[in-house]
Amino acid sequence: MTETENKRQKTDVKYELLYHPGIPGRGEYVRLALEATGTPYRDVANQEKSGYDKVQKVMDPKSTGDDHGNPPAFAPPMLKIHGAGKDGADLVVSQTPNILLYLARPLNLAGSAEQDLYLANSLALTALDLSNEAHDTHHPIAGVKYYEEQKEAALEKSKDFRENRIPKYFSYFERVLKGNEAQGKGKYLVGASLTFADTTLWQVVDGVSFGFPKEVKARRKDYPLLFDTFYAGLKQEKWLEEYLKSDRRLEYSMGVFRHYPELDRQ
Amino acid sequence: MTETENKRQKTDVKYELLYHPGIPGRGEYVRLALEATGTPYRDVANQEKSGYDKVQKVMDPKSTGDDHGNPPAFAPPMLKIHGAGKDGADLVVSQTPNILLYLARPLNLAGSAEQDLYLANSLALTALDLSNEAHDTHHPIAGVKYYEEQKEAALEKSKDFRENRIPKYFSYFERVLKGNEAQGKGKYLVGASLTFADTTLWQVVDGVSFGFPKEVKARRKDYPLLFDTFYAGLKQEKWLEEYLKSDRRLEYSMGVFRHYPELDRQ
Repeated sequence: MTETENKRQKTDVKYELLYHPGIPGRGEYVRLALEATGTPYRDVANQEKSGYDKVQKVMDPKSTGDDHGNPPAFAPPMLKIHGAGKDGADLVVSQTPNILLYLARPLNLAGSAEQDLYLANSLALTALDLSNEAHDTHHPIAGVKYYEEQKEAALEKSKDFRENRIPKYFSYFERVLKGNEAQGKGKYLVGASLTFADTTLWQVVDGVSFGFPKEVKARRKDYPLLFDTFYAGLKQEKWLEEYLKSDRRLEYSMGVFRHYPELDRQ
Repeated sequence: MTETENKRQKTDVKYELLYHPGIPGRGEYVRLALEATGTPYRDVANQEKSGYDKVQKVMDPKSTGDDHGNPPAFAPPMLKIHGAGKDGADLVVSQTPNILLYLARPLNLAGSAEQDLYLANSLALTALDLSNEAHDTHHPIAGVKYYEEQKEAALEKSKDFRENRIPKYFSYFERVLKGNEAQGKGKYLVGASLTFADTTLWQVVDGVSFGFPKEVKARRKDYPLLFDTFYAGLKQEKWLEEYLKSDRRLEYSMGVFRHYPELDRQ
């Protein structure tokens, strides 16, 4: 980024994503909604020097809220929207599905009919439940403990995740794509255009495929719409192709989706 | 219910709650929003003969959706809203936080300012995360297995839940109530009136207190706004007092919140 571009972003950008630096994590669901629509945003912890201090301030365990009337956040991601609060204050929205919901209509990711927002929201929430379950495969006991300290439970939980949960979720989304095929052509979950349910599910399928490559490889043939039409189809859209090549797309590491070979199909 | 009342409900009621019979569970979050506002609804599985068949049909693992253009549901609760779909069809909304969000504005549970909906939604989602974590204390490995089959992991997870998660969540909501005290008087999380964040948090606090009575008894003094003003205050509101005495309020049993003495503080 040139100095001029950097300065412009710092002063003009409406949306600030507040999340941990260095991992896609739950912040990725927000990034994809913004990227899909070419919406300018600043990824504070990754793009600003000392940006993570700003993130931590919003979730300070002693905070009762900020000067703009926003309550404290329980956990990241948060989205700060300049001037969108009461009397032109900054609004801070937290909770991943809530941020997606907030962005859906302004970013034109809410479908065309009034009801589509709620159909998309139910699907985004279900995809995020799968994301949480994927996280819990490596941390079934406690988020504050290391994976190695809960490995035995992780092995057991991963077995259930692979054998029961993955097919249950994948079958569900396959059926939703099928039910909407006349409009969505297998590429969109709701109606005939991209919604935040699609961007969210895409990332979850990508993340689960990263974490459990052997399991997904063995099962993907059972879900042709989900993998061949939806997942592969979106991946070929220009915005996503470009984003995945950019340095804004972070590599999976120690976040929600992790690849521990022993947790995958043997 | 008299026969006439029963008949009236069956024919005229706009909202049908579709959930498992016999437990409060996640359906309770929807019930409380409806009860708080005196909104007529039918609790299908508990009030209709063969009602549970209707619930199961919506989440049939082979369904690709219904004749009204609704996608299948992944899991209950669902809310059917007569005539609210496209061209006057019935709309079926799934996912607990999505149902609450759908009801918030029509039921006047969304606060007064435009932004309050999103603040309430972030708090309701956070309360529901606590609800999910409470569930996972007795089912840390697999939902399809019995508690007894995962008791060792449950003991470990419950220890973390009691020592780390309960204080983290309770402190968070105490601070939110504190930050909004000028308007909410410690009784409301957002603004000066009841929102779906309040009804949801109330039920989660009630459920966690049921599941972990010793732990909550030992800790509640650290959260005076949450327990003395918010929880006890709402419990004295007429609608909630009456609802809790009614036969519509189901007893805790083998649902989200369970009381296993060995998982509580010893």
